[in-house]
Parts: sequence; C-alpha cells; structure tokens
Amino acid sequence: MRDALESNRAIAEAIAAQRGEAEALFEQLRRDGHDEPGVSRDPYGAGEQRAHATVEAIAERMGLEITRDAAANLYMTLPGRDRGASPVILGSHLDSVPHGGNFDGAAGVVAGLIALGALQRLETTPACDVTVMAIRAEESIWFQVSYIGSRGALGTLPEGALDVLRIDTGRSLADHIDDCGGDSGALRRGERFLNPARIRAYLELHIEQAPSLVQAGRPIGVCTAIPGNFRYPDAWIEGSHDHVGLPKRFRHDAAMAGAEFAMALDRLWDDYEARGIPMACTIGRFHTDTALHGMTVVPGLFHLSLDVRAYDPDVLAELDRAVDGIIAGIEQRRGVRFHHGPKTQAAVGKMNADIRARLTEGAQALGIPAQDLGSPASHDAAAFAAAGVPTGMIFVRTEKGSHNPREAMTIDDFLAGASVMTWWLAHTVGG
Amino acid sequence: MRDALESNRAIAEAIAAQRGEAEALFEQLRRDGHDEPGVSRDPYGAGEQRAHATVEAIAERMGLEITRDAAANLYMTLPGRDRGASPVILGSHLDSVPHGGNFDGAAGVVAGLIALGALQRLETTPACDVTVMAIRAEESIWFQVSYIGSRGALGTLPEGALDVLRIDTGRSLADHIDDCGGDSGALRRGERFLNPARIRAYLELHIEQAPSLVQAGRPIGVCTAIPGNFRYPDAWIEGSHDHVGLPKRFRHDAAMAGAEFAMALDRLWDDYEARGIPMACTIGRFHTDTALHGMTVVPGLFHLSLDVRAYDPDVLAELDRAVDGIIAGIEQRRGVRFHHGPKTQAAVGKMNADIRARLTEGAQALGIPAQDLGSPASHDAAAFAAAGVPTGMIFVRTEKGSHNPREAMTIDDFLAGASVMTWWLAHTVGG
Repeated sequence: MRDALESNRAIAEAIAAQRGEAEALFEQLRRDGHDEPGVSRDPYGAGEQRAHATVEAIAERMGLEITRDAAANLYMTLPGRDRGASPVILGSHLDSVPHGGNFDGAAGVVAGLIALGALQRLETTPACDVTVMAIRAEESIWFQVSYIGSRGALGTLPEGALDVLRIDTGRSLADHIDDCGGDSGALRRGERFLNPARIRAYLELHIEQAPSLVQAGRPIGVCTAIPGNFRYPDAWIEGSHDHVGLPKRFRHDAAMAGAEFAMALDRLWDDYEARGIPMACTIGRFHTDTALHGMTVVPGLFHLSLDVRAYDPDVLAELDRAVDGIIAGIEQRRGVRFHHGPKTQAAVGKMNADIRARLTEGAQALGIPAQDLGSPASHDAAAFAAAGVPTGMIFVRTEKGSHNPREAMTIDDFLAGASVMTWWLAHTVGG
Repeated sequence: MRDALESNRAIAEAIAAQRGEAEALFEQLRRDGHDEPGVSRDPYGAGEQRAHATVEAIAERMGLEITRDAAANLYMTLPGRDRGASPVILGSHLDSVPHGGNFDGAAGVVAGLIALGALQRLETTPACDVTVMAIRAEESIWFQVSYIGSRGALGTLPEGALDVLRIDTGRSLADHIDDCGGDSGALRRGERFLNPARIRAYLELHIEQAPSLVQAGRPIGVCTAIPGNFRYPDAWIEGSHDHVGLPKRFRHDAAMAGAEFAMALDRLWDDYEARGIPMACTIGRFHTDTALHGMTVVPGLFHLSLDVRAYDPDVLAELDRAVDGIIAGIEQRRGVRFHHGPKTQAAVGKMNADIRARLTEGAQALGIPAQDLGSPASHDAAAFAAAGVPTGMIFVRTEKGSHNPREAMTIDDFLAGASVMTWWLAHTVGG
C-alpha cells in the first residue's frame, strides 16, 4: 500500500471519477420506481424487480460475479485473492415504502457498487471476496415482518413469515418470493445461503431518517446501535357502533379509546425523553373502520398499528408492560376491548466496536466531518448483527427524513459516505 | 264521538287488529334492505327505492291517494271531509345508514299507515286530509346534508346541496334525485311542494336512539326538542409524513394531533355534563390516510368528521368557539395545520306545546307509560319545526340504540306508539 496521504487522495479521486455514474444510476432507479408522489419499489413486486434489473445490469458491466439465493437476494462479487476466505458484504435493500424516496435502501447498494468500482480503478484486488448484496423486502410496511431478505439469506426468518400476506395484494410472501425467481420451499426447509460464522464483516450505508446530521452540520454518521422493537401490526379496539344521538354515559366509542391510547403513549414518550432514555413510539395506522364509519355513527371499531423501539432490552420490556397497563385502564374506563393481534419483536442490534473505530478513522483521514449516531430506525444490519456478524453502518445526512417523497440526499454527501466505505475496505481487506 | 272509554278501547282494538300487517310490513322492509349485517337503504338508491315500492303497494291496497314531489318524496293521503283544509302530515324517512337497523325511519312511516288503517277501521273520515309522508334521504351519512327530503319538499334546501356528492357513488344529489323520478331542476328553481303555512301539523314517530326509555321502563317518549348542530363533515389535519425512526422533536404527527383534538372534545363534553348542559359530540370518521399510512410511517395526514349538537343556540355558538380554540392550541404545539373543510349547521327544533300536551294526554288515556324526552338525535321533524309547522314527535324505546344492526323494537312498543298517534289524530281531526 502506498503512503497514507497518497492513498487517501487516490481513494478520493477514484470516488470522484464515478460521480456521473452514481448520478445516472440514481436517476435510473428513480425512473424505475416512479409513482407520484415519490417512488414505490414494492418488495417481491414490479417496483423492486425493476430496481434489481437495473442494478444487475450495472454489475454485469463492471464484470462482477452475479448470483441469487432462495430469497431472490442479489449478490454482486468482486473476487478476492483468496476465494476461500470469509467475504465482506456491503449491503442494503432495494425496496421502498409506498410513495417513498429514492435513497432509503438503494443508496447503500449504489455505494457498494461505487466502492467496488473504486477498488477496480485503484487496481486493488482485495484479500477476500467483497460482495455487494441487494437485499429484498426490508420495508416492513408491506408484509409487516422485519428484515425478510436478510433473514431469509441468514436462515433466521421467524416462524410463519412465509405465510404472511402482503397488505396490498393479499398474496403470501412465499408466492411473492417464487414469482421473483426465489425458492420458498428451500426457505421453508430452513436452508440458508449465508453462514454468519463465515462472513468477515457486514457494512451498510444508509440515509439517515432524521435531520440530526443536518443540525450537526456533518455529512456522515457512524452508527453506534440499532434499536430493538416490539410491534403490534394489526391491533384493534372493539366498542359499540351507535347513533350520533347516544348520550355519553351509554357510549363505548372505539375511536375515543384509540385517541386516549395514543395520548397516553405520547405522554409516556415525553417522560422517557425527560429522563434521557432514548425510545420512539409510532402509531402509523390509526383509523375508524372505513367500511362502517360515518359522520353520524359513534365508532364501534378502531384499528391501529404500534411500533415501539429502544436501544436497551430492559427498556423495551418496561415499555411493553407500560403499554399493557395503559390498555387495561382504557378498557375499564370506556367499556371497550383491545385486541392486540399478532406481536412481532426485533432484538437490539449492536455495532462492532472495531468497525466503528475504523469508520471514524477513515472519515478523519479523508477530512470528512462525521459523528457517532444511534440509529433511530431498523436496518438489515440489525439482522446481521443479531446473527453474530461483525457489523457497521454509515449514515448520510438528509433534511427531510426518509419514507416520504421529499426525502433527498446530495451527491456530495453520498460520495463522502462511499469514500469512507472505500477507505474502510482498502484498510481492512485492500492491497 | 263516542264516550271516552269506548273510544279508547276502539282505538286499541283497531291498532291490535293490524299487528300481523305491521309485522309483515316490517319483515318485507327488512328483506328489501337486507345487507348483512343489518339493513342498508341507501337514499336515492336501490335500497331506498325498494322500501318506497313496498310502502306504495300497501298504500294502494289501502285505497290511499298517492303522489310524489320533485324530491321524490312519497305522499299517501286519506282524504278528509274538507279537501281544502290544511292537512296533517304523519311522516318519517325510509332511508337508513349503511348496515343500520330496520326501524330508524321506517317505523314512522309504518306507524302513519297503521294510524290511517285504524281510522279506516273506525270508519272515521277526518276533518282534513291526513297524509303519510315517506321522506327521502334523512340520514346525512350519505350526502352529508341534513333533512334532504323534507327540506326539498319545504323549499328550504341549503345553497349548493344539489351538487354535493354521495360519499360512496361520487355522483351528485341532483343526479340521484333525477334517477329516482324526481326533478332536480324544479328544486334548483326553488319550487316547493309543501307550503308550511298550509300544514296543520306534522307528527313523527321514531325509534329512540339511546336506552333512556328502557332505563325508565316506559315504552313511549314525547319529544320536548330536537338539538341544533354544527358539523365539519370533511375536516383534515396536515402534518408531515416521516420515517418511524424520526425523533419526537422533529415530528409533525397528524394522527397524534387528531388524538389530542378528540381527547380535548371528550373533556369539553365532560365539563358540560358536569354543569348539567346537554350536548353531544361525535367524531364518526377518524382516520389516517388509507392510501399513505403504514406501520412504519409517521402519519402526515389525518381525516375526521365532527358533529356537535345542543338544545340551545347560545351553547352551540360557545361550543363552536371552544372547538376553534382547541384547534389553535394543537396547531401551535404540534406544528400541524387543521383544515375545517365545509361547515354545515342545523337550527334547534322546538316542539309544539299543544301537540306535546295532547300526546301525553293520549298516552295516559290509553294507559301507556310515557315521559318527556329531549331528542339527542336530528330528525325531519326539525325541518318542519324550523319552517314554522306545528310539530310533534313520539319516541319508541329501544335497548340497543339505532344506526347499528342490533337495533330492535318490540311490536308491542311499536303498536303503543301507533296507538298514541291514532288517539291524537282522532282527538285533533277525527269524528
């Protein structure tokens, strides 16, 4: 390896030389997912398929080795000097929420390709294989299961996951996987494509989902941890449908019960914030029954989803008990009944200390302002961390969040993130 | 007129003799509107049309005079001795809420026919015409306009009403009226079928919408007043759609704003109840945007309807100001924006003192336990009262409310109400 200054300059140049290619690839992905407002890349559906085809074509042009697994994840590999050595994986997902932005997920895949392109330009053959993994179905809004693609690859899909229905199509995950060239039967038999003990590291670049880095004036964040969560995707409240004229003492208003529940969680979150304990709580779906509701009907049914997340398993357990206490109080006061529906959980994802330190070192070496950042959101990286793979994440700043059509990322900030990824590669498995 | 005791017994017998006919008519109406769960008689649509055809066939068999007006209301008249004298109208509506009960509305029309049948059996020719009016489109859930049929007949439809769209079909009220044999052009020109100054009285029997009479152990209530209201049928809250990972300080959660609004109104109602001031407040539609919401998206849009009602115009005005104050506070605290959308209002409906007294007297004479009862709900009677017609209402008890499939009324209670209606007719325009 050449001396540090020269090496850093070479990495920066190899990244800068690919600016036009990165912009073109993002533009093509935006066209592939175009669904005003924003983009929709539905997992195991047409939107995600178009993105996979676009990315695969680029990988072919770069001469990378291409393969797929039973979950239809796409692997694009730059061969290393020792083909038998444990590989490094640079991954993220290509699906999006409905009417989301262009960068949530896809930026990590594009960054991986840009990093491999940089190694190629630097004429560096890494010590081991380096694989860009385009992961399927990370956005749990569709199937309401977390990390489907990455857990499918790792053989850690939860019981029953293959039978859940996509909320818009009503078809099972297994059917969707098979439609896209996967093999749900192999997944059902518990076969796994990736052995976590044989992965050297998993590194994921991802857009931040909050304006923390904008506020701090730094393009890059180095992830400290990914929160665990518990979720009730399909909870509902059973009250009594009644006439608008019914006096208050006779009512069992399911929507008012829902409102009281939401306000109680809002206060709970305020309490935790005041005590300096990070958590988040989101009620994304929150609605009267659209088939039965009306201006002159007291709502007898109310539906809601709940996502509660925190960085500490004990805090999560405490919040879980608090939610049940809130529910019991409302049931008693309002004469309604809560139905939790299915419950899903995801473990807290710890980031590897050595990778964190090296990413911070890389940003410093390249003169890129960076800071530590707890991920408020869930990511595929958590599935790798949970499986025991040494895992790291790089966040790229955004002002308007993600999961919405106003999501944005400058090409400069993106290239800064890709540079840090390349620096890490070069200093971990390079030359 | 025969002596009082004999007369009362004759009325009771004339009603009792029609028990089978009343039961058969209710059963036919239930079959006409069958839409599990419950019945749906959609106004100016197939459900209401079937009910009109059923009622009209009965009226023909009874030899009543049949006519329709430009709003397609149905009038079924027992001619009086003086055809030029101002008529009495016995009215109610034949439409229902979606998946509602069989009695809300229809019971008043059936009661009118049973009362005329009783006069026929008693061989009584009334002093003036007595008309049963089957009114269109009372349930404002469909077009979100109050008293369409009765105000169409009286020429008091509000500006723009003919252009509103039915929430399920998306077609205009004018189109729906014309489809059912009405003449929306005549309504648009302001033509009216009924001159309120030339109506002797309007009397409506209706199912109660709360279990007050059940609690009191009385089959019959005599209405004291119908509340006025103000409504925001299509209000919405604009926040910001964001990622589930967004920290609280960055969020503009429209659903949380909706929950805070609902809880504030809940407390407002509690305050009024504590002060003994009757009102009601209903948020019948209360929902995240079904096209955009999801478990992992902070809701940026929230939709709601609001119906606030009271018996005192000053209280209504005070509540209107209170609602705006609540909204202003939430907008400021949560960085969201409320959009009121269109506003509709209905005046408080006062009941005629003489009719009230006579109905109470009739119930006593027939040995039927009755009590005064403020109507918590809106009724066509309010449109007649607002137009200056002497108006009265009889409520029939129900345990399970109305506007829901569990709504129920015993045939005995129904016949008790029809008996009081007949007694009032006999003693007002009879023999």
